[in-house]
Amino acid sequence: MPESQETGFTHFDETGKSHMVDVSDKAESNREATAEAFVRMHSQTRLQIEQQAMKKGDVLAVSELAGIMAAKRTADLIPLCHPLPLTKVSVHSSWVDGDDMHAHLLDAADDHHESAYLRLRATVKTTSRTGVEMEALTACSIAALTVYDMCKAIDKDMTIEQVRLVHKAGGRSGTYERKI
Amino acid sequence: MPESQETGFTHFDETGKSHMVDVSDKAESNREATAEAFVRMHSQTRLQIEQQAMKKGDVLAVSELAGIMAAKRTADLIPLCHPLPLTKVSVHSSWVDGDDMHAHLLDAADDHHESAYLRLRATVKTTSRTGVEMEALTACSIAALTVYDMCKAIDKDMTIEQVRLVHKAGGRSGTYERKI
Amino acid sequence: MPESQETGFTHFDETGKSHMVDVSDKAESNREATAEAFVRMHSQTRLQIEQQAMKKGDVLAVSELAGIMAAKRTADLIPLCHPLPLTKVSVHSSWVDGDDMHAHLLDAADDHHESAYLRLRATVKTTSRTGVEMEALTACSIAALTVYDMCKAIDKDMTIEQVRLVHKAGGRSGTYERKI
Amino acid sequence: MPESQETGFTHFDETGKSHMVDVSDKAESNREATAEAFVRMHSQTRLQIEQQAMKKGDVLAVSELAGIMAAKRTADLIPLCHPLPLTKVSVHSSWVDGDDMHAHLLDAADDHHESAYLRLRATVKTTSRTGVEMEALTACSIAALTVYDMCKAIDKDMTIEQVRLVHKAGGRSGTYERKI
Amino acid sequence: MPESQETGFTHFDETGKSHMVDVSDKAESNREATAEAFVRMHSQTRLQIEQQAMKKGDVLAVSELAGIMAAKRTADLIPLCHPLPLTKVSVHSSWVDGDDMHAHLLDAADDHHESAYLRLRATVKTTSRTGVEMEALTACSIAALTVYDMCKAIDKDMTIEQVRLVHKAGGRSGTYERKI
Amino acid sequence: MPESQETGFTHFDETGKSHMVDVSDKAESNREATAEAFVRMHSQTRLQIEQQAMKKGDVLAVSELAGIMAAKRTADLIPLCHPLPLTKVSVHSSWVDGDDMHAHLLDAADDHHESAYLRLRATVKTTSRTGVEMEALTACSIAALTVYDMCKAIDKDMTIEQVRLVHKAGGRSGTYERKI
Repeated sequence: MPESQETGFTHFDETGKSHMVDVSDKAESNREATAEAFVRMHSQTRLQIEQQAMKKGDVLAVSELAGIMAAKRTADLIPLCHPLPLTKVSVHSSWVDGDDMHAHLLDAADDHHESAYLRLRATVKTTSRTGVEMEALTACSIAALTVYDMCKAIDKDMTIEQVRLVHKAGGRSGTYERKI
Repeated sequence: MPESQETGFTHFDETGKSHMVDVSDKAESNREATAEAFVRMHSQTRLQIEQQAMKKGDVLAVSELAGIMAAKRTADLIPLCHPLPLTKVSVHSSWVDGDDMHAHLLDAADDHHESAYLRLRATVKTTSRTGVEMEALTACSIAALTVYDMCKAIDKDMTIEQVRLVHKAGGRSGTYERKI
Repeated sequence: MPESQETGFTHFDETGKSHMVDVSDKAESNREATAEAFVRMHSQTRLQIEQQAMKKGDVLAVSELAGIMAAKRTADLIPLCHPLPLTKVSVHSSWVDGDDMHAHLLDAADDHHESAYLRLRATVKTTSRTGVEMEALTACSIAALTVYDMCKAIDKDMTIEQVRLVHKAGGRSGTYERKI
Repeated sequence: MPESQETGFTHFDETGKSHMVDVSDKAESNREATAEAFVRMHSQTRLQIEQQAMKKGDVLAVSELAGIMAAKRTADLIPLCHPLPLTKVSVHSSWVDGDDMHAHLLDAADDHHESAYLRLRATVKTTSRTGVEMEALTACSIAALTVYDMCKAIDKDMTIEQVRLVHKAGGRSGTYERKI
Repeated sequence: MPESQETGFTHFDETGKSHMVDVSDKAESNREATAEAFVRMHSQTRLQIEQQAMKKGDVLAVSELAGIMAAKRTADLIPLCHPLPLTKVSVHSSWVDGDDMHAHLLDAADDHHESAYLRLRATVKTTSRTGVEMEALTACSIAALTVYDMCKAIDKDMTIEQVRLVHKAGGRSGTYERKI
Repeated sequence: MPESQETGFTHFDETGKSHMVDVSDKAESNREATAEAFVRMHSQTRLQIEQQAMKKGDVLAVSELAGIMAAKRTADLIPLCHPLPLTKVSVHSSWVDGDDMHAHLLDAADDHHESAYLRLRATVKTTSRTGVEMEALTACSIAALTVYDMCKAIDKDMTIEQVRLVHKAGGRSGTYERKI
């Protein structure tokens, strides 16, 4: 059966159909992306993380590692992502000053002054035909979710905020730097 | 590692070690959790989603399904989560009025008035020994990431905001309802 | 928060939305399903399988095992399937007489007389809230695809035919037996 | 221990052993494959799919997406398949006229006149050392199984028929086009 | 395959066929298993692990976590293992005195006196129809392999030794305790 | 927000943090690794394997295949391993003479004279930026664990011994051959 002959088949409009887009004509090149997520929590929760007092274990070490492993699962999770051979993945956590978050990044709600903010930042590299923005975003998202999992016994109010692309380089669309 | 220095295999100090906590003594019971995430995007991006104009396909349908499938992968992604037999998963998207978001949920930054907000809300159920908060949070996070993936060609500024537990019922710790 | 009250959110109609249906009210019970698939191939291909002459290895043993392992991945592959604790999986291959296939099951195309038919039959059991039809169908499908993979170097014309549920027992909908 | 010295080890014959064949000497090249599967169902089932009346959701959209995601899992499922970096995957469904199926493709059984046929067609591309036939066949098989899953509440008689390679290009073995 | 030669689909000899054995008649009960593995390495390698000097990161913490996560993948990896809902997983590392290893467990080769031994011990629990020996063995094996991965830049001679079941309780076969 | 500006963030020392190391500057090259594991078992267990008398099926064929499939999962299991496109995987089993094991490889414990030793040897190739030692070690480890799984009903004393790298070629660090 000639594969393109459609006589006898009902109409079939591909417009709007979901698909993993064709990147076979793109050249392989070095690509890199950095993304971050913030976990807002009660100050008391931060204290217990820093004192290694959480029953499930070392929150920051486990969360960073979960993010690294998740980056490698991105194409399994995000339906239309291309599978890519990653050449580097790192996820780092750091505590962010609430006033800074208040002034520059997030919002003016008063109760935020008493919140602590943990930043999870992921950097991913590849040499491939498409970029690694989704890998970086997935890594910091899963790292943030792991923080939630390990602390939820004492703080179910935690929220994950401002998951966002910070930087991207390489590929046809060039470099992206987030403004604010 | 002084704490595990051993004479002939016996003593062994587990303090601070990460582990998947023992739930074998907990009774099986019906449990449910609802979580949500918001994707903030340019109004123009919303328009293109609604007009089904995104090149990769139907953004909302694909994202909801990605969230459902991700719920089933939670124990693979979150290192210390117990694998659970899920009995229901749903993920629904809805557009949220920016002024509402402004007033009640997020922040007062002026530029937000021109943003559109898509809410991804996931509900998960199980009959098991531990809860499904992480499954619900993972579902809406991966759904939100899929929105990002499908729209990033036209809007890399999108951010995922306010990933949070909305409601949880069942289990020893009882019911949780988020206060705003 | 009543989950259907959406004051301040735009309308949101769940009709037609995809979801993993709620089975939390169903009782656990013993369930079983048998499914089968047929691989039609050139007689010469059958000969080489039987003589263990395929370069990739033992076609039937590898294919059966691939089917067993695939049954355990069903909920990962079929988006709205519930994850189930399987209590038994087997996949067995057997050669089917072409005339039998001709007369009873398939079609009258003359060239089929020279075809060989390999049947892959899978049986799966669980004690759970929903059935294992999809696990059995997935097992025999992946087994059949593995036959294709291992023989495609010499026979790209192979087709997988008549993937179908043969038998199912247990659960609210009761017993199903395929009538030819 | 010299790795090839076998003194003291019993004989060891590799003939007939299963293995993932060595493709390290093959050159990377652009490769493409198209495969298709058909789901035969009661006409009434087709009607309900078209009216979006299935309880589990949008059958065609979910099935196509399931097929795309399955293509990326091929090397996990088919034991001796090489993992490949896919550069494109699409799966499209279309209704096929039963009389056409009758005349050209399938069989003369009378009851087929009242059947509806849904065709699932998958196209996959890579730039790699081996072809993507299995990825295309896996995609349309899993898409077809997903159709079954979403409709089985009303039609357990559905069968998946004629899973087959339609077209392949690239690589040492050149182009293949299915006749009939 | 002469043993499955069939006349019209009926006879079918299952002798010798691989299958996931039927446990549907077994009762659910509490089960537990402990297994361990040893990594033998140069004393200098131990020193660098203890000083946190390995380039890839914290060897013991990463390896323990890798073991925990691997326990949850056991049924994906070991073809005929039943998928089980684990209720507890822990993996702990400890340094073992070489002389102890020498005297009681391993061998008399002189060079072993200068080796360091890291023990990885995993404990897994479930409430299910079959045991968790394989989950415990998989956990400590993957933890040991992770140690190798993180140290191989400086010590490719490391060997994983004495992977073994230490203890098992629950189920029809009762309690097992390793002698020695 | 400039991605490297850290004003307002607390100090953040990356020393000792776990990460998947950057290999983007390494050149792609042909790489190969061979590893092996030994399963020590009661002589009676060997006899039953050879007579294909194990209830779960063909021990050697299933174990070899499990090893091949596991090689493809290595980056999923070992947290800091890079995902690689494997170009060849084989796993072969062979019986090893106990006296040889005794004299050259293992130890002098008397009871070993009555043990049987099965060797699982895996060879893996890739054309990539980093080596495949972990893939080869994972393949033979999972193959050995599968032997345990299939025989544990009659022999829980089995131990996996001497999992080790035998040979490696390609890449910046050159060739490695195990001595002894």
